[in-house]
Amino acid sequence: MTMTATRHAEAVPSHINGLDVQAAMDTIAALKADNKLARFQFRARNTWVNGGENRSTIRDFYGAGQEDTSRTEPFEFTNGEPPVLLGNNEGANPVEFLLHALAGCVTTTFVLHAMARGITIRSLSTELEGNIDLQGLLALDETVPAGYEQINIRMHVEADCSDDELDDLLAFAKQHSPVCNTVCRPVPVKIERIAA
Amino acid sequence: MTMTATRHAEAVPSHINGLDVQAAMDTIAALKADNKLARFQFRARNTWVNGGENRSTIRDFYGAGQEDTSRTEPFEFTNGEPPVLLGNNEGANPVEFLLHALAGCVTTTFVLHAMARGITIRSLSTELEGNIDLQGLLALDETVPAGYEQINIRMHVEADCSDDELDDLLAFAKQHSPVCNTVCRPVPVKIERIAA
Repeated sequence: MTMTATRHAEAVPSHINGLDVQAAMDTIAALKADNKLARFQFRARNTWVNGGENRSTIRDFYGAGQEDTSRTEPFEFTNGEPPVLLGNNEGANPVEFLLHALAGCVTTTFVLHAMARGITIRSLSTELEGNIDLQGLLALDETVPAGYEQINIRMHVEADCSDDELDDLLAFAKQHSPVCNTVCRPVPVKIERIAA
Repeated sequence: MTMTATRHAEAVPSHINGLDVQAAMDTIAALKADNKLARFQFRARNTWVNGGENRSTIRDFYGAGQEDTSRTEPFEFTNGEPPVLLGNNEGANPVEFLLHALAGCVTTTFVLHAMARGITIRSLSTELEGNIDLQGLLALDETVPAGYEQINIRMHVEADCSDDELDDLLAFAKQHSPVCNTVCRPVPVKIERIAA
């Protein structure tokens, strides 16, 4: 990523796409000087409530060389299931939350690297569809994977650049989005049971 | 999955772990008779707000052979970023939402297959940690993957069965959780830009 904001080389605005350009450049410079600062650990705690309902709290994380203390209250999110999947719509279900995470990550990565290229975005929205065969979850057919077969994203974006620049930026964002990369690439998950 | 609830063979309770046993058995029987009913499509719509803030709405999905109409109002979730990542904690961030999705999915899969085995769960909670090197997102080092390197889950569970049965169930749940499988396996994501 070049943080030169080339389109505004003579008068770099303080913010592009709502992001503080100087803060971003300072962050990049710090990470380049000490790449251990780029190591982050995110966390969640989840408690089962009943049936398909469970609740997560998310607050602390480690990054940029220290424990973050910016959040005084945890975020709370409830997973649920619709009646057809034996629930009462207590919340969106986990595979839907995955789509929310993916949408947000591709969007933020796009907006961030647009800023890096000096591209101002006027509007951006996405629609996601994920196809899944629940024979996998239910273990009715062990040849059917439990997860999504494929996820499709349609993006609508308006910006002060050419379509070619948008397509190049989109390919770059897909490649560099942490959630998209976690979905596209096999990422090891280790589950350990802690004795009571 | 055998839906025989073997531990309660003589008097199957109406609910195990908050799940309706008869409804589950009916669902399984219907999917076995017509496996097209197991095909689901989940969806999300997301709109960029500003900087690292964006918002998803989730309501409709297709499954069990029809469009679901059980939700009169959409669920809404806001992605944000902490100050160290140029945001104002407008919400949890996308990689944190991924942990929430993963926690919920492993939990629900565990609880569902516990019911199928006739195991009653008294309590279940998880703690997740995901490690990520943001040099990937920032394109500072193209050899660093953008996504999580590894995700670790610690599960605390109390149930009316032996530790061996719990460990077997946990391995089964990891294998059959849709979100866990989507993370562990490479899942194709297609992104298409729609002209304005």
